[in-house]
Amino acid sequence: MISEFYKEMTGKESVIRQFFDFARKRAAEMGPDSVFNFSIGNPSVPTTESFTRALIDIVEKGDPVKLHGYSPTLGQDSTKKAIADSLNRRFGMNYTAAHIFPTSGAAGALSHAIRCVAGKGETVLTFAPYFPEYNPYVSGTGAELKVVPADFESFQINFEKLEEMFDEKVAAVLINSPNNPSGMVYTTETIKKLAEVMTRKQEEYGHEIFLITDEPYREIVFTGVDSPFPSKFYDNSICCYSFSKSLSLPGERIGYMAVNPAAKDAELLVPMAGQISRFTGHNCPTALMQFAIERVIDDTSDLSIYETNAELLFKELTRIGYKVVKPMGTFYMMPRVPSESGDANEWCWKAARELGLITVPGDSFECPGHFRISYCVPTEMIEKAIPLFEKAFQF
Amino acid sequence: MISEFYKEMTGKESVIRQFFDFARKRAAEMGPDSVFNFSIGNPSVPTTESFTRALIDIVEKGDPVKLHGYSPTLGQDSTKKAIADSLNRRFGMNYTAAHIFPTSGAAGALSHAIRCVAGKGETVLTFAPYFPEYNPYVSGTGAELKVVPADFESFQINFEKLEEMFDEKVAAVLINSPNNPSGMVYTTETIKKLAEVMTRKQEEYGHEIFLITDEPYREIVFTGVDSPFPSKFYDNSICCYSFSKSLSLPGERIGYMAVNPAAKDAELLVPMAGQISRFTGHNCPTALMQFAIERVIDDTSDLSIYETNAELLFKELTRIGYKVVKPMGTFYMMPRVPSESGDANEWCWKAARELGLITVPGDSFECPGHFRISYCVPTEMIEKAIPLFEKAFQF
Repeated sequence: MISEFYKEMTGKESVIRQFFDFARKRAAEMGPDSVFNFSIGNPSVPTTESFTRALIDIVEKGDPVKLHGYSPTLGQDSTKKAIADSLNRRFGMNYTAAHIFPTSGAAGALSHAIRCVAGKGETVLTFAPYFPEYNPYVSGTGAELKVVPADFESFQINFEKLEEMFDEKVAAVLINSPNNPSGMVYTTETIKKLAEVMTRKQEEYGHEIFLITDEPYREIVFTGVDSPFPSKFYDNSICCYSFSKSLSLPGERIGYMAVNPAAKDAELLVPMAGQISRFTGHNCPTALMQFAIERVIDDTSDLSIYETNAELLFKELTRIGYKVVKPMGTFYMMPRVPSESGDANEWCWKAARELGLITVPGDSFECPGHFRISYCVPTEMIEKAIPLFEKAFQF
Repeated sequence: MISEFYKEMTGKESVIRQFFDFARKRAAEMGPDSVFNFSIGNPSVPTTESFTRALIDIVEKGDPVKLHGYSPTLGQDSTKKAIADSLNRRFGMNYTAAHIFPTSGAAGALSHAIRCVAGKGETVLTFAPYFPEYNPYVSGTGAELKVVPADFESFQINFEKLEEMFDEKVAAVLINSPNNPSGMVYTTETIKKLAEVMTRKQEEYGHEIFLITDEPYREIVFTGVDSPFPSKFYDNSICCYSFSKSLSLPGERIGYMAVNPAAKDAELLVPMAGQISRFTGHNCPTALMQFAIERVIDDTSDLSIYETNAELLFKELTRIGYKVVKPMGTFYMMPRVPSESGDANEWCWKAARELGLITVPGDSFECPGHFRISYCVPTEMIEKAIPLFEKAFQF
């Protein structure tokens, strides 16, 4: 019969969505200049010319029967090899095509990776602030997501709480660095310490504990920032990636899962992902996107605007008096709510309704008392919004 | 920990895959002329020029930020409207954009549709011969797939067995017409009778029973064949479609789920599918494919070769003495195994090893004593294979 579980969910809009919809309505009613929309994470720069040229070239010159035919279940070999080679070149790893599973974006990669290594009765640990979609990704496998509270001073890992929450049910630890929503990048010190804890816990509990790394913002790291490749520091690891942000292709659903060659059962995890696809009806990403990505594997869009915006916003917000941990990458930052109550939901709605300043309360990311700014917008919009942030500071 | 469930599956290759791999190996060792591969269902005709032109035009002229941006969760409105309008025009239905959910091919459509209306403790009924991937699609939801035995004389529905197997646990009935692997199309009489049984059972058990129709071969119906649109005859229905076969795009993963506007909770089922995607990490099909399909919604590749091949094979096989139900569409047929034992597995392997004649035993489709021929191949290959079918008839 009609699923009550999914039916009940349809009524409930996410808070992010509510702010996004408010912004759209206000723009329609009062004009686009009345809205300063910092609520969404859609890349604001175009993809590369190299990607567009590759796409056209493939479609114009390819044999359509071969080009649009079924991909092999585990992905196009040439695409898998290009991804492995690029990771090896850049991060000194030793992936082969057999360790790579092309997916429909990071969502596809994560849901396959989690199903590979966690299930009913097990726990996946992640760290606040975190992307709320981790909840359905994990609960869809039957496992339970538990969230280690944030280290609000640095947005690195709160190791004290991590040790407290670790138990033998933990099958995987899920990290997102560079981080949505904080803009933080885990330092080499943080990753080393995490690897040390997990290695110790593996020995203590006598079973493998996988590190799943969600890395769609890997290429958006600001000048001089230390941004280690986490899989380099821990063997039982699966890297999940999307080209959504680096090549500005979020709608084209192309990414991958890369299994550390040193992981337990490394040679089995990609074939297992192939089996998982049969149960979710997911299958491969499109053949066309696999062929196109292969040709531009090391290219990125011009991502410099995100750093320009981060610098400007950080300078102005701290001048006004906001407390902000300086972002090290992505196109997000997570200042503290300036109001006395510290109620982010209240403050964000007031700023939205009175000023058209649309941000998102941190509660959705288990980061109360904070709000997220998405600055994948024209720099001019930020300049115009600064006086509004000044006004909202008085709320 | 590493999932034992998926791990164990990796060792087991499907029988279809084993024959396919045998064909590839034999071709590599003895040359391509030594293999007559009738084992796979990959369209052999190119997509339309209109599709290729649409794709290039969209990529060349579109604003890349908008073109490659995130699709709305429930799909591009313009694409949804084009699909609804086309179905209404062709089949006299009254879909709106809100009833259409674009998916990654029929696999995506089916796995969403089944999750919408069936779950743990419930049964989904389907009819032999059937596509074996229905097993993971259904078991992935927690429901159980039960297979009504074939009517071997006509490959229409075995209504006697259907009535026997129907009980109150049945949440959905899943049909595939035109049918892979039999090539049969359910007649208006069959569909009407099925609707009558299901309507009666709904009343008897006091709950809705959904008809899920898997229709990727809808456009491959031979001259003069009666091919009704099943949703026209039953309100609680969800049509699942893929452009894989009609436009020869299996690798591009584009299809849809169309909810009958007269179904119970019709307005909720598409938003429910959107929620389901969050749990499977599935999301929308690519933005590019949605935009392209919209422009060629009523076009098909030149599908006439499949009918030519069907006629030739049917004429020659019946002349030799094979018992074959004449296919009415698709690019499959399902003759009886001519050997005395009737063991399809044995007969198919013998034909493969001794003659390079690659077909697939019917056991995988719960159709023992039969074998599947996929004739999406050049007609010349069929002409050359006829003497081999003559030899194999003596096995």
